[in-house]
Amino acid sequence: MEKRFTKDHIGIGILGLGVVGSGTVDLLMRNREEIEKKIGLPIRIYGIAVRNVNKPRAVKVDRALLTDDPRSVIDNPDVDILCELIGGVEPARSYVMQALEQGKQVVTANKEMMAKAGNGIMKEAARRQLDLQFEGSVAGGIPIIQSMKNALAGNRVTEVMGIINGTTNYILTRMTEEGASLEDVLREAQELGYAEADPTSDVDGFDAGYKIAILSAIAFTSKVSVDDVYVEGIRSISASDISYAAELGYIIKLLGIGKRMPNNQIQVRVHPTLLPKHHPLASTHDVYNSVLVKGDSIGDVMFYGRGAGSGPTGSAVVGDILDTCRNLRFGSTGRVACTCFETSTVQPIEDVETRHYIRMVVQDKPRVLSAISGIFGDNDINIEAMIQKTIYGKQTDIVWLMHESPGKAIQAALSAIKNLDIVVEVSNWIRVEE
Amino acid sequence: MEKRFTKDHIGIGILGLGVVGSGTVDLLMRNREEIEKKIGLPIRIYGIAVRNVNKPRAVKVDRALLTDDPRSVIDNPDVDILCELIGGVEPARSYVMQALEQGKQVVTANKEMMAKAGNGIMKEAARRQLDLQFEGSVAGGIPIIQSMKNALAGNRVTEVMGIINGTTNYILTRMTEEGASLEDVLREAQELGYAEADPTSDVDGFDAGYKIAILSAIAFTSKVSVDDVYVEGIRSISASDISYAAELGYIIKLLGIGKRMPNNQIQVRVHPTLLPKHHPLASTHDVYNSVLVKGDSIGDVMFYGRGAGSGPTGSAVVGDILDTCRNLRFGSTGRVACTCFETSTVQPIEDVETRHYIRMVVQDKPRVLSAISGIFGDNDINIEAMIQKTIYGKQTDIVWLMHESPGKAIQAALSAIKNLDIVVEVSNWIRVEE
Repeated sequence: MEKRFTKDHIGIGILGLGVVGSGTVDLLMRNREEIEKKIGLPIRIYGIAVRNVNKPRAVKVDRALLTDDPRSVIDNPDVDILCELIGGVEPARSYVMQALEQGKQVVTANKEMMAKAGNGIMKEAARRQLDLQFEGSVAGGIPIIQSMKNALAGNRVTEVMGIINGTTNYILTRMTEEGASLEDVLREAQELGYAEADPTSDVDGFDAGYKIAILSAIAFTSKVSVDDVYVEGIRSISASDISYAAELGYIIKLLGIGKRMPNNQIQVRVHPTLLPKHHPLASTHDVYNSVLVKGDSIGDVMFYGRGAGSGPTGSAVVGDILDTCRNLRFGSTGRVACTCFETSTVQPIEDVETRHYIRMVVQDKPRVLSAISGIFGDNDINIEAMIQKTIYGKQTDIVWLMHESPGKAIQAALSAIKNLDIVVEVSNWIRVEE
Repeated sequence: MEKRFTKDHIGIGILGLGVVGSGTVDLLMRNREEIEKKIGLPIRIYGIAVRNVNKPRAVKVDRALLTDDPRSVIDNPDVDILCELIGGVEPARSYVMQALEQGKQVVTANKEMMAKAGNGIMKEAARRQLDLQFEGSVAGGIPIIQSMKNALAGNRVTEVMGIINGTTNYILTRMTEEGASLEDVLREAQELGYAEADPTSDVDGFDAGYKIAILSAIAFTSKVSVDDVYVEGIRSISASDISYAAELGYIIKLLGIGKRMPNNQIQVRVHPTLLPKHHPLASTHDVYNSVLVKGDSIGDVMFYGRGAGSGPTGSAVVGDILDTCRNLRFGSTGRVACTCFETSTVQPIEDVETRHYIRMVVQDKPRVLSAISGIFGDNDINIEAMIQKTIYGKQTDIVWLMHESPGKAIQAALSAIKNLDIVVEVSNWIRVEE
C-alpha cells in the first residue's frame, strides 16, 4: 500500500475550544514557523467546532474558522488530522469514529473516552493504519505515553505509578502544610478554580482511574478498561491521618498504581497511599503530576510536570499533531499501533498485598491492645509499628502500621475488631507503598 | 522514492560489547518476543565486533556472532541497523559514516562523537533519509532526546538544565552527606568503580559538556558543538563551600545549563552551581541524573533516572533500535531528521549574568567589610546575603551571595579585592541558579 502524502500542506480540524483547545490553537499559531520546519510541510487549521461561535475566547482566532457544526469539520476533505478536544465519551467517540472511517488521523486528549471506549477506537485506527494519539489524556504535557510506546518500549515494565490528579494533590498538599480539613481546602480550591463545583470526578478518584487504566494498558501491553480499576478517593483522609503518617515518616498522596504480577495478573488501582518521605514521587506538590515507571532494564525512571491546564495539555496535543504530520508526510501513519497484545487478568483488590496503615479509636482500658493485636495475629497480619495517644478522657487513638498482607485479611480483622466492646470506631485504613 | 521494506526480518549489527553493548544485547535477547510484536517484524543480530573475541563476557551470547573485524559487521548486507557502541570519536565516526554511505540506519550511544562530530554525521544521515538515533548518549535510559524531538517539539524551549554526570553527582552527594573532602570521596568512588582511574572527563566537567552540547542543539534547534560549551569541573569545591551553601539554603550540584537568550544568543555551560534546596533538580542524589526542560507552553517538565550503566543505557539503545525498526518497516526512515535549522551564537561566559557565591579569607581588622563591599559596589554588584565567621585567630571566612551580575563584573571585582592587604585569599566563586 503506497501512502506517500501528495498534498503540499497538512489540514487540521479541531473539535472544542475550551481549556485544551485554546492551548492547542494558541501554540500552533505562536510557534507555527518552527513547527512547520520540524514537520517539513506547512500546516493549516480548516475549522474549529464550538458550541457557541459568539462566546468570547481566551485565544485570538479567526472568527471565520469557528462553526457550531462538528460534522462540517470532520467531513471537510481538507482536514487530514482531527483533534478531538471536547471531552466525555459521547458524542466525542462518534466523532472520532466518523473521522477514522473517512481515513483521517486522530489526536485526542480525552481520558474518559480512551479509558472507557479506547479499545474499539484503537482497533479501528489499527485496522485502517491510521494514527490515533492521546498523549494529552494523561498528566498534561508530561511525555509519558510517547515515552512508554517508544523510548522505553524495550523494557518489560513491572510498575507504573503516579500522582495523576492535580486537584487532589493540591488538596492533600494544603492539608499537609496547613493541617486543614478536606472540606475547608476543597472549598478554597473551588473558589480558586482548582476544583470543579462538582468535585466528584477528582475527589472520588475517577479521573485518576481513567488515567491509570490508560497507562497500565500501555505499560503492560494489555487491554485495561476503566472497569478493571479499583478506585477509592480521598474523602476519608483527615488532618490526623496526615499528621500520624508524618510521625511515621510518610506523606499521604492519591496514587494511580499499575503492577505486573506473576501468572499474567496485573494490579490496577487508585487510592490514597502512604509514601515514604524520601520516595521520588513524595516531593510532587500542589497541582504538579509525576509518574514513575519501573522497567526490567532501565530501573526507575520518573517524569514530573504540570498535569493539567491550557499550556501543558496544549503542548501534548501539538506534540501528537507534529508526530502525526511526520507520519503523514512519510506515509507511515499507524506505525506505532495499539500494542495491547497480552491478555492479563486483574487481581481482585482483596488479594492485593500491601502494607497498611490503620487508625482507630478505643476505650482506654486494660487489655485493649492485646485483644486487638490478637485479632490481627489471628488473621496472619504482622504489626510493624504502633502509635497510641490519649485524646479525650477515656478514649484514645491507636495507629497501626502493618507488614504486607492481602486486603481481605485486613477486612476480616477489622470486621472482628469493630465488634469489640472496647473499640469505639475504626477511623481509617490506608494502603502503604514503597 | 518508494522505501517500503521488503525483507521478512530486520538485521542488526553491533560494534562493541562493553557496558552498553552488553546491556543492549542482553535486553534484545531477553525481551525479543515482545519487542518483535511491537515492531511487527522479527529481528536478528548478525554480528558483534569486539576487540578480543576470547574475552569472557558479562552477557551470554553466541560465540559465532563475535568478530574482531568491524568491517565484516558494517559491510554485511544483512545488517540494516548498525549500533555503534564503542565510544570515542575515532574510529567510531568512520564506522558510522561507512554504514551511512551504504544506506544503513545507525543507532549510537556515543556522546563524545555526537558532541564533536555530530554535525557531519547528521548531515549525511539527513541527506540519505536515514535514521541516526542517539538517545543513549545523554542521561542513560532517560528519554530526554526522543521527548524533545517529538512530544515536546511544539514548544519553544527556553531552558534545558540537568545533572548529567553521575560520577560527580555521587561525589558531591557524599561530600554533602558526610562533610568529606573531594579527594577522599574520589578515592572511595574509584575503589567502588563509580569513578575511572583517570577521572578527568567526569571531574573536570568534559563529559557533562558533551551532553549539554547535544541537549542544547536539540532544545534550541541550533548547531552546538563541544567548543561552544564553557566547562568548569568540581575540583575547587570544598567541604566548607558545601556547608556555607547549606547555611544559605542551597545545595551544590554540577549542572549542564543551556538557555535561550534574546537576539539569537544561547548560553551553554557546565559548572558547579548553587541550587535552592527546593529546586526540582536538588533532590537528585548519588549516581542519578535528572534533566529539566522549560518550554513556552508546557512550563517546567523534569525527567529523572539512572544516568549510566548497562541496563539503563541498553534500554535507550534498544528504544532507538525499536523506533528505527518501525521506520524501516514503514519506509519512513529519516522522518525525524536533524532539526538544527537556527543559527545561534553562544554568549561569552564573561557576559553571562547569574547570581554568585563568593568565599574569601580576610584579616579580622576594622573596615575590612567596607573596603571589600566598596569594590563590589564599584563594579555594580549588589550584595544579597553575607556570612562572616572567625576561623583561626586573626583570620576570618567571609561568604557573599550576590544579586545578578555578569561574570566579568565579578572577575574585575575579585582582581581588585585580591590586591587588598587585608585579603588573604579569594577561596572560591560559584554561580547560583534558581
